Amino acid sequence: MSARQTTNTETRNGPLDRLARLRVSLAELGADALLVSHLPNVRYLCGFSGSAGLLLVAESKATLFTDSRYTFQAREEVVGAEVRIAKKGVLRALREALRRDRRRFRRLAYSASHVTVADKHSLEANGGGGIRWVQDGNLVEKLRAVKDARELATIRQAAILVSDVFCRTLRLIRPGVSELELAAEIEYGIKRGGGSGPSFETIVASGERSAWAHARPGSKLLSKSELVVLDQGAIIGGYCSDMTRTVCLGRASPRARDLYGAVLKAQQAAKQAIRPGVTAGDVDHAARASLKSSKLDRYFTHSTGHGLGLEVHEMPRLGKAEQTVLREGMVLTVEPGVYLEGFGGIRIEDDVVVTAQGSDDLTTAPRDLLEL
Amino acid sequence: MSARQTTNTETRNGPLDRLARLRVSLAELGADALLVSHLPNVRYLCGFSGSAGLLLVAESKATLFTDSRYTFQAREEVVGAEVRIAKKGVLRALREALRRDRRRFRRLAYSASHVTVADKHSLEANGGGGIRWVQDGNLVEKLRAVKDARELATIRQAAILVSDVFCRTLRLIRPGVSELELAAEIEYGIKRGGGSGPSFETIVASGERSAWAHARPGSKLLSKSELVVLDQGAIIGGYCSDMTRTVCLGRASPRARDLYGAVLKAQQAAKQAIRPGVTAGDVDHAARASLKSSKLDRYFTHSTGHGLGLEVHEMPRLGKAEQTVLREGMVLTVEPGVYLEGFGGIRIEDDVVVTAQGSDDLTTAPRDLLEL
Repeated sequence: MSARQTTNTETRNGPLDRLARLRVSLAELGADALLVSHLPNVRYLCGFSGSAGLLLVAESKATLFTDSRYTFQAREEVVGAEVRIAKKGVLRALREALRRDRRRFRRLAYSASHVTVADKHSLEANGGGGIRWVQDGNLVEKLRAVKDARELATIRQAAILVSDVFCRTLRLIRPGVSELELAAEIEYGIKRGGGSGPSFETIVASGERSAWAHARPGSKLLSKSELVVLDQGAIIGGYCSDMTRTVCLGRASPRARDLYGAVLKAQQAAKQAIRPGVTAGDVDHAARASLKSSKLDRYFTHSTGHGLGLEVHEMPRLGKAEQTVLREGMVLTVEPGVYLEGFGGIRIEDDVVVTAQGSDDLTTAPRDLLEL
Repeated sequence: MSARQTTNTETRNGPLDRLARLRVSLAELGADALLVSHLPNVRYLCGFSGSAGLLLVAESKATLFTDSRYTFQAREEVVGAEVRIAKKGVLRALREALRRDRRRFRRLAYSASHVTVADKHSLEANGGGGIRWVQDGNLVEKLRAVKDARELATIRQAAILVSDVFCRTLRLIRPGVSELELAAEIEYGIKRGGGSGPSFETIVASGERSAWAHARPGSKLLSKSELVVLDQGAIIGGYCSDMTRTVCLGRASPRARDLYGAVLKAQQAAKQAIRPGVTAGDVDHAARASLKSSKLDRYFTHSTGHGLGLEVHEMPRLGKAEQTVLREGMVLTVEPGVYLEGFGGIRIEDDVVVTAQGSDDLTTAPRDLLEL
C-alpha cells in the first residue's frame, strides 16, 4: 500500500471519524441514537479500554458512562465522547440520561446480542417509557470488519510477534516437557516481546488430546512420535493475532504426513479463494472441498476461520454458506483442521488480510511439517 | 477442619449432589427445569469447562448442549448430565429439545442476567410457545457462594501460589523495569508454578498511575520513590485467587507511610468484622468507617471486596448496605484502597474464608509496607 493511501486511510478512520460514519448509518436506520454495550465496540468508537462502560451515541454528542474505578483512565483514553462517572451504577446513570432527554431518544438502536434480558428490563422499567428500541443490525461490527492502515499495521505486529515466539519455543518442544510448561513459555514470550498478553488461553494439546479442537493445556507430558497442536495469539495495542501450528515429535508416520499435507492443501485452497467480492461461505467451501477430495471432510468439525481485530473472534465468520461478502481490509484467520479420535488432530492457522488482488499473509511462521 | 468433616463435606458436594440440591431449590421455586447459561455455573454443576455450553436441568435428568469442538472434552469431563453435541448451534438444539418435550418444561427457570435479549427471543420464537419463563433467583450462584472442603483446598492452593510468585518477583521490582515486564514475570511464575493461568490481567501500576484502581500495565518504567500497586491472581483447577500489594521504591514519604497504615488498619477492621451472620454491608462499613477516622473515606472509591471461586468476582459483593448474610465456607477478598490523583494509590488485598469463629487468611504474602 502506498504512503499516500496510508495517510488517507488513517485520516478517514480516526475515532472521531468512526463516530461520524456511525451517525450516517444510524440516520439510515431511522434511529435517534445508539446504545453501545459491547466493550470492543465502545473501545473502537471512543478509545476507552476499561471493563465497565456504556456509550450512548446521539446525533450531536456521545457520552461514555463508566464508574469511579476508571475516572483517570477514561479521562486519558476517551476521544470524541463526554465522560460521565456513574456513582450508582452505569445502568442507572444511563437510565436517568435517557429519561431526562427523552425527546432525543425516541428510537434507540441497540444490539440484542449484547444486552442481557435483565439490563434491558432495567432500562425499560424506569427510564424508557416512550423509547422505541430498534436492532442496530451490527452497525459497529460491520464498521470494525474493515480495518484501516493503522489497525492493519498493529495486527501485523501482533501476528509477527506470535510467529517469533512460536519459533523461539520450538527448541523446548521435546518428550518430557508438559503442555502447561510450553503454554507458559509461549505466553511469557508474548509479554516479554511487547504484547499486552495472549489473545486467548494458549492451547497446547499433544497425542490423542490433539484431537480436541479446543483442549486446555494440561499436566500431560509430551511423548515421542506424538502430534502437538499449538494454538496461540498475542494482543498488541488491543488488537489480536491467532495462529496454530501442528508439529510432530520425531519422525511423522506416513498417515500423519498424509493428513498434514491434506490440511495444508485445504488451507492453501481457502487462501486462494479469498478476494474482495467472494462470500465468506465460498472460502469455507474451498477448504471443505479440498478435504473432501482426500475423504477427510467429515473430520473437519469447525468453520474455516473468522475475522480478527479488537476481538479474537469477530465478523465475518468463514462458515458454511455464510453470505458476508469479503472486502479489502478485512482480516481473517484461515484454519482448517482434521481431528481423528484415538489418533490425534492437525490444524494449521494463519492470519491474512484481504487485498485488492487476493490476500496477504500476516503470519510469518513456517507452515511445513516440523519433525522435532 | 477434622478429617471426618472433610469427608462429609466432599460427599455432600460432589457434582451429582449439587444437582440434587439444585432440584430441591427448583421445586421450591415451582419450576419444572432450569436453563443454566452462565459457563461457571455449567462447570459447577456438571464439570464441563468448555467455552460453549448450555445445561438444562430437569427433574429426572440433566442435558448439556455443546458443539462438536468439545465432543471428546465433554465426554471426559461431564458428570451427571447427558451430553448432546449440537450440529447447528447449541441454541437451536436446546430450542428443539424444549419443543419436543414441552409438557415437561411448562415453567422454565433461567437467569435474566446471563441470557441476552437475542437468545431469549430466539428460544421463544420457535421453541417455547407454551413455556413460562421464571427468574432463577441466582440459585446456582447462591450454592456456589459456600465452598466445600475440596473447593477451599483448591482456592487456598491458588492463594499460596500467587503469594509465592509475588514474593519471588520482589527482587525484580526496581527503578528502570517496566510495568509490563513485571506483569509478564508474575504471569509466567503463575504458570510455571502449576497454575493454569492468571485469574485476570495482572495489574502493575506505578507512580501516579497507581491511582488508577484498574490500570493496565504499560511500557512505563518504574522510578525511585514511586508507589507500585501489584494486583494478581492465579487459577488452579478452575478456582481463582486474587491478591494486591503496594510497595514503595526506596524510602516511603511520611505521607505514603500514613496512607499505607490507614489502609492496612481498614483491612484489619474489615477482617475483624467478618463472621457468620453479619451482612456483606457490615464488612464494607467496617473498612469505610476505619478510613473515615483518618478522613480518607472519600478516596476509597470501590467496594471492600467480593466473593471468589470459579469466578474472580462472584457472590457476595462486600459493598455499601449489601444485605447478603455471610456464612461459613464463603471465600471473600478484603481489599480497601485509597487513590489520590497526582500522588498515587494504595490497595492491600487478601483472600479469606469465613470460619465458624470469624475468618482465616488464605493469602500468605506479608502485608507490611515493603520499601525496596
